[in-house]
Amino acid sequence: MSTIVMKFGGTSVADAERIARAARRVVKAKESGQQVVVVVSARGHRTDELIALAQEISPKPPTRELAVLLATGEQESIALMAMAIHKLGHEAISQTGGQIGLLSEAVYTKARIKSIDASRITRELNNGRIVIVAGFQGVTESGEITTLGRGASDTTAVALAAVLGAKVCEIYTDVDGVYTADPRLVPDARKIEQISYEEMLELASLGAGVMHNRSIMLAMKYRVPVHVRSSFTDTTGTLITKENPMMEDIVVTGASVAKNLARLILLDVPHKPGMAARIFGALAARNVVVDDIVQSAFAAGSANMTFTVSNEDLDTCQLVLEELRKKIGLGEIVVDPTIAKVSVVGVGMRSHSGVADKMFATLASENINIEMITTSDIKISTLIPQGEADRALRAVHAAFGLHKAGATKTSKARKSTRKTRKGK
Amino acid sequence: MSTIVMKFGGTSVADAERIARAARRVVKAKESGQQVVVVVSARGHRTDELIALAQEISPKPPTRELAVLLATGEQESIALMAMAIHKLGHEAISQTGGQIGLLSEAVYTKARIKSIDASRITRELNNGRIVIVAGFQGVTESGEITTLGRGASDTTAVALAAVLGAKVCEIYTDVDGVYTADPRLVPDARKIEQISYEEMLELASLGAGVMHNRSIMLAMKYRVPVHVRSSFTDTTGTLITKENPMMEDIVVTGASVAKNLARLILLDVPHKPGMAARIFGALAARNVVVDDIVQSAFAAGSANMTFTVSNEDLDTCQLVLEELRKKIGLGEIVVDPTIAKVSVVGVGMRSHSGVADKMFATLASENINIEMITTSDIKISTLIPQGEADRALRAVHAAFGLHKAGATKTSKARKSTRKTRKGK
Repeated sequence: MSTIVMKFGGTSVADAERIARAARRVVKAKESGQQVVVVVSARGHRTDELIALAQEISPKPPTRELAVLLATGEQESIALMAMAIHKLGHEAISQTGGQIGLLSEAVYTKARIKSIDASRITRELNNGRIVIVAGFQGVTESGEITTLGRGASDTTAVALAAVLGAKVCEIYTDVDGVYTADPRLVPDARKIEQISYEEMLELASLGAGVMHNRSIMLAMKYRVPVHVRSSFTDTTGTLITKENPMMEDIVVTGASVAKNLARLILLDVPHKPGMAARIFGALAARNVVVDDIVQSAFAAGSANMTFTVSNEDLDTCQLVLEELRKKIGLGEIVVDPTIAKVSVVGVGMRSHSGVADKMFATLASENINIEMITTSDIKISTLIPQGEADRALRAVHAAFGLHKAGATKTSKARKSTRKTRKGK
Repeated sequence: MSTIVMKFGGTSVADAERIARAARRVVKAKESGQQVVVVVSARGHRTDELIALAQEISPKPPTRELAVLLATGEQESIALMAMAIHKLGHEAISQTGGQIGLLSEAVYTKARIKSIDASRITRELNNGRIVIVAGFQGVTESGEITTLGRGASDTTAVALAAVLGAKVCEIYTDVDGVYTADPRLVPDARKIEQISYEEMLELASLGAGVMHNRSIMLAMKYRVPVHVRSSFTDTTGTLITKENPMMEDIVVTGASVAKNLARLILLDVPHKPGMAARIFGALAARNVVVDDIVQSAFAAGSANMTFTVSNEDLDTCQLVLEELRKKIGLGEIVVDPTIAKVSVVGVGMRSHSGVADKMFATLASENINIEMITTSDIKISTLIPQGEADRALRAVHAAFGLHKAGATKTSKARKSTRKTRKGK
């Protein structure tokens, strides 16, 4: 009998009615002859409410106790979901992170999963029960309660699917899949049927925000097929899966935008070993996330270094750099706090040229200045002024024909060319 | 170093301000050089909210899942209390029922405590930490979450005090102690300084309602001194302790009333073995709590049997009795649904006569009919019409001089008499 993991996010279990709807879906899967494991998040805004409660007591509560507090959110959800399934006449049993032996690192927040003891779950499944697991939480080897970081119920679900050898991990959410671009910004954005883990990772980190990044990496590592779909409709969503030949026919899978970036240029960075390590080490120590690092070639003993940070982190970033400036002898620091990043992603790029050309030409025809360019083998990103972000995204989306199903597929002729090139 | 257990009920931790106040009290006890273990209930009406949440999902949720849900209430409280103590600069560590190895019977609600593994608590105390334990919850040997029944946080606190050999178990609540009678009914009721376990048990089961009955029995069994006091003032409350000679000088310690009783008289109960067992067994099977059972002597092959039930249980009770009537050949069933019970309690009664006399005379002078009388060695109860209950309580309270400290103490002369009698 095949096993399926179904994960319901906070909005999908926000109230009694939604819990009942999710329960009906679970029972339907069970009645179709599958073994079903359900992972749930805390209801609606429960986690935020609990954090507010802690804040009322102490502005900086100890992380151990915060984890104990937040873990109650998912514990509520598992009990309520089990009750809803019972009411439909099926046997269900709830399980906390501790009860299924979900061991994590010995840190209390954002802890990573070390192992899961599948035996308890397997035993219950073999007894014909539906097993309801609390997302987001684990225990250390000494029995301390930990949390896996916000959004990490996805990670719990994928990890369970991996351990149980599940056929698929279904992520039920308030959108009906992954889109070629954010539909709020690009009205004719289209739902993607299949996307590779690599593409999804790029899109997630670029701000598509449908799934937690760590969960996609875990799915990729263990080759767990993930189906992102709506908890409010029955339509098929987006399958996140390993790269396959069909996917490579599509050059560009999606486009994304990240707004609210700041670009910093450090002038006259001395040409000495360890400069980059000192600069980015100091920023990392203050939890400033840095992206799009570009260093010009050293000339006359110094070079320029450029990178982006989110606008939120800009103040901290400037503080850190000012401290460093005297110590290591940096030159001027030029800041532009009004930067956005528009990117296109697609595994097909690996074997097709012309994507960068087309992107630059599109932005040029829209009269949008490109401030900077960074690329990976499946992504091209351009930094542009924030004010032009939405227009740029729509233009790029249209240029690559993302609104049309299969529009960016290569023609037969190009396909054969590609094959020849690959053969080299 | 001596150990103290401090238990805070729901009203004492209802919001951030009250939690902070309780935390200050805990820190004060710690700074006075004691090892401190704190037991907390769920905040304010949290348990009722959680029950309502479950009811929304299912009118009859499985008890296993109800226990998982309700246990979150106390888990929230321990985390918040630990945070509040941290904020005052002391080290505190929260512990769920599972974490301290509070093993219970394998029933999910109203489970009884089997054992507590004190080693974790002792280790943390020896590290200088204040330990915050979730009341009301335990785990089975296989790690299932259980609840100990409503009000059972008191039981958790007393059990911990017993296991740790604590000097005292302090119960912080919204009243400042145990009174000679309910102050809402008897304005000049007086706070009792010391009361024996036996007296407290009688008062608790008669409706004084300050502490959970099971917790008093446990305290009596392990001789744990219990101090019931207000969480809002610093005044001394009531010490519940083992009987001592000083207490015996006081003939009547308190008076109580239970309203909303119904009295049933079963006429012509056949004189056959096992009649009482069949009748009360059938009632117990339907969870009808029966009290004040009196059976007249058998005459002409049958007898009358009288008892009380609460008005809430009356319908169920009558149903059960009608079913039995044909089967075992009972006669008529006479019901009076407007009965109250006024009682006086005192360990001094054991060695003093005249208490019953005085009580009956007092009620007679108030023109109140006594419907029935039951007694134990430390209690005299009279059943009277519900409409007279408050007046009867006030009259009895005044007659025994309970409003005056030590007023019911025996004179020296009587004391020596008593000693002589005891010597017999």
